[in-house]
Amino acid sequence: MRLPATTIARLSKYRRMLGSFNYESTHIFSHNLAKLLNLTPEQVRRDLMLIGLTGNHRKGYNIKELIDLVSKTIDSEKGHNVAIVGMGNLGMAVTAFIRRAKTRLNIVAAFDIDSGKIGKKVADVTCYHVDDISDIVRDLSISIAVLTVPPGEAIDVATLLIKSGIKGILNFTSVHIDVPPHVYLKETNIITSLEEIGFFIKEGSSK
Amino acid sequence: MRLPATTIARLSKYRRMLGSFNYESTHIFSHNLAKLLNLTPEQVRRDLMLIGLTGNHRKGYNIKELIDLVSKTIDSEKGHNVAIVGMGNLGMAVTAFIRRAKTRLNIVAAFDIDSGKIGKKVADVTCYHVDDISDIVRDLSISIAVLTVPPGEAIDVATLLIKSGIKGILNFTSVHIDVPPHVYLKETNIITSLEEIGFFIKEGSSK
Repeated sequence: MRLPATTIARLSKYRRMLGSFNYESTHIFSHNLAKLLNLTPEQVRRDLMLIGLTGNHRKGYNIKELIDLVSKTIDSEKGHNVAIVGMGNLGMAVTAFIRRAKTRLNIVAAFDIDSGKIGKKVADVTCYHVDDISDIVRDLSISIAVLTVPPGEAIDVATLLIKSGIKGILNFTSVHIDVPPHVYLKETNIITSLEEIGFFIKEGSSK
Repeated sequence: MRLPATTIARLSKYRRMLGSFNYESTHIFSHNLAKLLNLTPEQVRRDLMLIGLTGNHRKGYNIKELIDLVSKTIDSEKGHNVAIVGMGNLGMAVTAFIRRAKTRLNIVAAFDIDSGKIGKKVADVTCYHVDDISDIVRDLSISIAVLTVPPGEAIDVATLLIKSGIKGILNFTSVHIDVPPHVYLKETNIITSLEEIGFFIKEGSSK
């Protein structure tokens, strides 16, 4: 199924919102779901129509059906094996996040260069040396890497991950990395987010 | 100046890319800048036109002029005072990020509930108790809060921040928070990002 990235991100949010939430009913209207997530009802209906879900005029959408259909759409059957590359504060925080969320994402390895961490469990994940990325990515069928290394190492480590056959990278480093077309790159840029906030609150105050 | 959030985010990236980069020339063409950031040249030209910058047909855009104009557009004169709320691994990682980037964002306070941290410097920032948010936000003119508390505390802490007069929130918690129209909310959702990657690499492999 071909769906835009923005739709996938929203489907993921619908599922998590409805899964974590003790909604008082078995059904929910698009306008209620929209309100919970600061979206428009049209947006919600369009997204759900794209995955083939239609609501009932009187009752809205069946929540269980919605969650199941989103899962069928987004999740892969076996789940994805994930590696955290860079086991500093950020790497440990991301590990805790993934653990806490009920997802099909299995953290199977961490990588670092700190000899105090290599060969040990850090935040309950076995930590390997960055030099062993190729072997471990292959042996453990790792498809997604979370890049949480210091900026100076980002490009070298990303190059190594791509050569090792990784399919997706979540880049936290603020450093631009180039990926070939078969690798899906997603960036989380903390400074860009803060500068965006800064701009809009400045504009707001000048009104 | 009214600019879309996506434009602001890209302007922030242009500046950081060109500022961190030893570009061999004083000028850069839109297609070169676009290539560095996986964008289209049209997108780059449109963004720069919105802030009143036009390139030279033969030489492209003057890099210094571009950086100065982006700074004039995005930055507020005095900068923004930022608080990190939740000084666990993620809070400390975000603190390090902001410090490392040259920005107009000044981290002036951290908040936590751990008595081992309160009243001390954590990652070089004075840490206060969450109960003192109101006083400290006012006394230190804090306009932006980075929310890195555990999910169970997200809503209460956000409510307190909003009551205290915060203008912008960067929410890392994966918990949906409601903000009034005068507060600018930006969310960084790690699980959503990973699920998006998971979907697209699954699709890719089924081609």
